[in-house]
Amino acid sequence: MSVLSLLLGRRLSNTEAGGEKITELEGVPAMGLDALSSAAYGPEAALTILLPVGAAGLTQIVPITGAVLLLLFILFFSYWQTIEAYPSNGGSYTVASENLGAPVGLLAGTALMVDYTLNVAVGISAGIAALTSAVPALHPWTLPLCLAVLAAITLLNLRGTQEAGLAFAVPTYLFVVWWIGLLVFGLAKAMAGHPAPVTRPPPIPAATQAVGLWLILRAFASGCTAMTGVEAVSNAVSAFRAPSVRHAHRTLAGIVILLAFLLLAIATLARSYAIGAMDQTRPGYQSVLSQLAAALAGRGVIYDVAIGSVLAVLCLSANTSFVGFPRLCRLLARDRYLPHSFAMPGRRLVYSLGILFLAGAASILLVAFGGITDRLIPLFAVGAFLSFTLSQAGMAMHWTRALRHAGSPKVQLKRFVNGLGAIATAVALGIIIVAKFAEGAWITILVIPLLFWLMHSVRRRFDTVRRQLRYGAMQHLTRHNPPAVMLPMESWNAITAKALHFAISLSQDVLAVHLSALEGPEGDENEAELRRDWQRNVVMPAQQAGVPAPTLVVLRSEYREFLEPLQKIVREMEQRFPDRTIAVLIPEVVKVKWWDYLLYTYRSRQLQAALMRQSGRRVVVIDVPWRIVEE
Amino acid sequence: MSVLSLLLGRRLSNTEAGGEKITELEGVPAMGLDALSSAAYGPEAALTILLPVGAAGLTQIVPITGAVLLLLFILFFSYWQTIEAYPSNGGSYTVASENLGAPVGLLAGTALMVDYTLNVAVGISAGIAALTSAVPALHPWTLPLCLAVLAAITLLNLRGTQEAGLAFAVPTYLFVVWWIGLLVFGLAKAMAGHPAPVTRPPPIPAATQAVGLWLILRAFASGCTAMTGVEAVSNAVSAFRAPSVRHAHRTLAGIVILLAFLLLAIATLARSYAIGAMDQTRPGYQSVLSQLAAALAGRGVIYDVAIGSVLAVLCLSANTSFVGFPRLCRLLARDRYLPHSFAMPGRRLVYSLGILFLAGAASILLVAFGGITDRLIPLFAVGAFLSFTLSQAGMAMHWTRALRHAGSPKVQLKRFVNGLGAIATAVALGIIIVAKFAEGAWITILVIPLLFWLMHSVRRRFDTVRRQLRYGAMQHLTRHNPPAVMLPMESWNAITAKALHFAISLSQDVLAVHLSALEGPEGDENEAELRRDWQRNVVMPAQQAGVPAPTLVVLRSEYREFLEPLQKIVREMEQRFPDRTIAVLIPEVVKVKWWDYLLYTYRSRQLQAALMRQSGRRVVVIDVPWRIVEE
Repeated sequence: MSVLSLLLGRRLSNTEAGGEKITELEGVPAMGLDALSSAAYGPEAALTILLPVGAAGLTQIVPITGAVLLLLFILFFSYWQTIEAYPSNGGSYTVASENLGAPVGLLAGTALMVDYTLNVAVGISAGIAALTSAVPALHPWTLPLCLAVLAAITLLNLRGTQEAGLAFAVPTYLFVVWWIGLLVFGLAKAMAGHPAPVTRPPPIPAATQAVGLWLILRAFASGCTAMTGVEAVSNAVSAFRAPSVRHAHRTLAGIVILLAFLLLAIATLARSYAIGAMDQTRPGYQSVLSQLAAALAGRGVIYDVAIGSVLAVLCLSANTSFVGFPRLCRLLARDRYLPHSFAMPGRRLVYSLGILFLAGAASILLVAFGGITDRLIPLFAVGAFLSFTLSQAGMAMHWTRALRHAGSPKVQLKRFVNGLGAIATAVALGIIIVAKFAEGAWITILVIPLLFWLMHSVRRRFDTVRRQLRYGAMQHLTRHNPPAVMLPMESWNAITAKALHFAISLSQDVLAVHLSALEGPEGDENEAELRRDWQRNVVMPAQQAGVPAPTLVVLRSEYREFLEPLQKIVREMEQRFPDRTIAVLIPEVVKVKWWDYLLYTYRSRQLQAALMRQSGRRVVVIDVPWRIVEE
Repeated sequence: MSVLSLLLGRRLSNTEAGGEKITELEGVPAMGLDALSSAAYGPEAALTILLPVGAAGLTQIVPITGAVLLLLFILFFSYWQTIEAYPSNGGSYTVASENLGAPVGLLAGTALMVDYTLNVAVGISAGIAALTSAVPALHPWTLPLCLAVLAAITLLNLRGTQEAGLAFAVPTYLFVVWWIGLLVFGLAKAMAGHPAPVTRPPPIPAATQAVGLWLILRAFASGCTAMTGVEAVSNAVSAFRAPSVRHAHRTLAGIVILLAFLLLAIATLARSYAIGAMDQTRPGYQSVLSQLAAALAGRGVIYDVAIGSVLAVLCLSANTSFVGFPRLCRLLARDRYLPHSFAMPGRRLVYSLGILFLAGAASILLVAFGGITDRLIPLFAVGAFLSFTLSQAGMAMHWTRALRHAGSPKVQLKRFVNGLGAIATAVALGIIIVAKFAEGAWITILVIPLLFWLMHSVRRRFDTVRRQLRYGAMQHLTRHNPPAVMLPMESWNAITAKALHFAISLSQDVLAVHLSALEGPEGDENEAELRRDWQRNVVMPAQQAGVPAPTLVVLRSEYREFLEPLQKIVREMEQRFPDRTIAVLIPEVVKVKWWDYLLYTYRSRQLQAALMRQSGRRVVVIDVPWRIVEE
C-alpha cells in the first residue's frame, strides 16, 4: 500500500476534484496540442510517400498540403457548428449516438478509441524520432526510449494531471513561437532569393519511379494525419469559462490558423531547401523538421531549442489521449458497453482502468512496429477520419431534424456545412483506406469491427442481467418462514458449536452432515468419536432443555468427493421444503497469516463457490468465520 | 477434467484399494530394488574418490568394499530384529518417535525425506549415466533425459502403481541374473589366470597424489551410498503374506546376500581388469559397470542387456522413493507436522501432493547439479545414515525398556545387536559428514535442520488452533436470539429484494445501507431514485401489511472506499447489539461464464473477505446468490 502511495500519491476525496474553468489562452495548449503537434509528422508522412520520385516529389508537396488545408478548413466550419449545438459535450460518440442511433454512436466510439491509441503510439515515436535526429547515438535505443516515455506518461496520468496546466502551456507556446519565428525567417529568406542552407540537408535520393495519381493519393492520405486532433475542442466545451461557446470558438480558430500556417510553411520551405524524408529505421536518420531547423539556423542553440520543443510537444500530445481515452471509456461504461470498473475513479480521481488499457494497447503497437513512426502512420488516419465522418453526418442529421420543426435558411446553411464536412471527410476516409490498405490500414479496419462486436456483446450481456433483475414490490412481508439449515461438519469443535448455535437460532430444521471415508481406505475414521461428541454435547443438552435436537447424518463418500454428496443433500432439502430458503452454514477457520493459506485446505471456499454456482435460487450460503487468536 | 482423466485415469473408489499380500519372490524386487541398484553407483562412487592416486587406487577398492560389507552385515542383523519387533511398520520415523520421543522421531522423518529425495536424483542420474555410457551420442542430453525420466515416473505414480508388480520383478531379476552370470564368469576367468579384457577399458590416469588415510576415509564414505535402501523391508512388513515376519526375514536376507555378492565381485573384478572411474561431465564417459561389462563380454548383445538392465533398475529404484516418500508425508501430516492435504488420497488413491513435492525437489536437485551422479553422491549418504542411526538407537532403547519389565539374555543380545548397529552407523555418519562436508554434504546438513524447524513450526501452529477449537457442550439451547442484519445495497433490484425477504425472515432488526459518491465527483447519483424505489417497494407494502419497515441508511463515501464504511457500520452494530449475532447479507450476481469474471466487479467477494478477516466473533456473512439465466 505504501508503494502505491509513493508512486501515485495519497487518495483524493471527491471534494478535491478540480473545477477551474479555462479561456482560450489555456485552451490552445490544452486542446490544441494534439492538432498542432501533428505538424511534426504530417508533412513528413507525405514526403515519405514521395521518396521514390526523388526531387520531383518536392514540387508535389505544396499542392498536396493545399488539399489537406482545404479539408482542414471544411472541418473548421463543421466543428464551429458542433460547438454551438453541443455546448456541453460534442464528442463524436455523443453526436453520432444522439442523431444516428446507438449502433452508429458505438461505431464512432470504437473509431475514437483506436484513434486515441494510435495517437499515443505515433506521438511518442515521432517525439523520439526528433530526439534521435538531434542525438544520433540514441538511434539504436528507439524502442526502449519510446516505452520509457510511455511509462512516464502513464504514471503521471495515474497520479492525475489536474495541476498540469502550466506543464502543457510552456512547451506548446515555446513550440509555436519558436517555429513560427524560424519559419517566417525562412520564408523571408526564400522570398528574397535563392536560399542557402546553413547546414546542408542530406541529398535527396534519385527517382526510382515517375509521379502518378496513385502516388499523389497515397501522399495525401498520409498527409491527412496532420489533421488528427482538430476535434478536441468540441469534446470539452464545458471546460471553458462563460461564455463558453465564444471561448471555444476562439480556441478552435487559434488552433486551426496556427496549424494551417505551420503545415503550409513547412511544405514551402521543404521545397525551397530540397528537404526530403529519410528512413527512420536506418542510422543517420533525421526528421524533416530537424533537417529544416538545421538548414535555417545551423546546428546551434536555436536548433536545439526547436528540436527540444518538438520532442516535448509530441510527448505531451500523446498525453492528450490519456485525457480523452479514459473519459470515453467512462461514457461507454455508463452506457453498459464496457465493464462498470471503467467508470469508477481511482484513488487520484482519474479513471485508472482506462489509463492502464490505453498504455497497454499503445505499448503493444510500439513493440509491434518497433517504435517507427512511418510504419504506424498507415494505421492512424482511419480511426480519426471515421470518427470525423460519423460526427459530421450526425450533425447533418441534427440540422435535418431541426428543419422539420422550423425551417430557416440559417439552419439549411448549417446543414450544408456539416453535410459538406461529412462528405469531404468520407471521401478522404475512402482515399485513406484505399491508399493505405496494404501498408497497414487493414489492421485498423479489422480491429474496429472486432472492438465494436466486443462492446456490443458486453452490452447485450449486461442488458440480459438487467432485464432479469428488474423487480416489483416486496411481498409476503408478514409470512416469516424460517429457513431449513444444513451444516456440514468435519469434527466436533468450537467452530461447529458456534455454527450450530447460530443454526438453532435460525430454524428448528437443522441437519448436520458428516462425510466419512474422505481420507481413503487407510484413513482412521473418527466417526465413533464424532457420534459420541454429538451425543454428549448436543443431544444430551437438548434433552435437558426439553427441545428437539438437530439431526446428525453420517454419509460414506467412497470416491472421497465432498462437494457432490453435499450438493445432493441440498437438492433433497430443496424438494423436502418446497417453500423455504435452504441455508447452508459453512464453518471456516479464517486464514490470517500468509502461511495459513499453505496449511489449511480450501474446502470451505470450494463448497461455497460450488453452492453459489450450481444451487437453486432458494439456497443461501452462510459463512461462520472463526479467527485464530495469535498466541 | 477430461485431460486429467486421460493423464491419470478415472477416479478410484476406496473399495478398489489393492490388498494383495506378497511373498519374498515379489518382495525382493519390490523392496530390494533400491538397495540392489546401489551396486551400480556405490563402487563407482568409491573409485571416483580414488582417481587421483591412479592405479594404486585399485588395490584399495577391495578392502574399502570389505569395510562397507561389514557395516552392511551389522545393519542386516539390526533390521532383522526391527522386523520382528515392529511387524506392521518399523520405519525409522515410527521407531524413533516411539522410543526416543517426538522430536527425535521428527528428525528421523526429516532425514528420511531428504534421503528419499536424493535417492530419486541419484537413481535417475546414474541410470542416465549407464545409458550415455552405452550410447555416447546422448551425452550432451544428460539433464533433459534425467528430467524426462523423472516426469514419466511422476506421472506413473500419480496414476497409481498398484498393478506395477510385474514391471518391477522382470527388470530386477534380469539385472540380478544377468550380472551374477557375468560376474561369476569374470571371477572364474580371473581365478584361472591373468584375465584378458574383451574390450580394453580406458587406461587409468597417472597418479597425482599418494594414498593416504583421508582419501581412504572419503572413498569409504562414498562407498557407503551402496547401502542405502536396506531399510525398505522393515518399513512394510505388513505387506507380506502370513507369516509375514518370516517372509520379511527371507526377503531381507535375499537382498543383503545379493547386494554383498554384487559389491564384492564388482570391486574384485575392477581390480583384476584395472577399471577406474571416469568423469561424467566429459564426453566419452563410461560408467564402471559399462567398462566392466565390455571388458568381460565385449560390446555385443550381452553388454547391451547388462546396461539395459542397469538403466531399468536404477530408474525403478527412483520409483521406490515415490512409494515411500508420500506415505511418510502422510504419517507426518497425520501427526500435524505437514498440512492435512498430504494425508488426502487423490483420485487414484495415491497421496498425490507428496508425489508432486518429491518430483519438485528431485528436479531442483537434478537441475542444480546438472544430472551428474558424482556431484550428488556427497549429499546422499547423510540422510540415509542419520535415519539408520536414529532407527537403531530407537531399537536399542526399545530393548532397554523391555529389559526393565523382564530381563532375559536373549533381549540383552538383541539390545547389543541394535546398539552395535547404532554405533556403527553413527561412526559411518561421522566419517561421511567429515569426509564429504566440503564436497556437498553441508547442503544436506543445512537442509535437515531447516526442514525440521519448518515442520516443527507447522505442528506448533496446528496445535495452537486445535487448542483454541477445543470446546464443551452446547449452551443456551432455548434462548433463540435472532441476529441483527445489515444489508449493503447498490440499487433496488431483484437480488436486493430477495436478500431483503430473507433478512426479514431472520430478524426484526434489518438495516439496509447504500453508499453514495462511490463514482466520484462526476458520477450521476441514483440516490433519489433509490429512495423512491425503497418507499414504493418496501415502506408502502410494510405499512399495508402493518409491520415495521426495515431502515434505509444512505452514506456518502467521499474517498470512494466501500469496505471501510461498511465495516464501521458492522462495528457499530456489534456495540448496539452486544449479545446478538450480526449477520451481513451480501447479494451477489453469480459469475457463471468466464467473461462474467471480466464484466463484473469483485466487491461482494472483497466485502466478504474483509468481514471474515477483520470482524469480531459474532459476525457471520450470508451470501445471497443470484444466478443469471442464459437466454
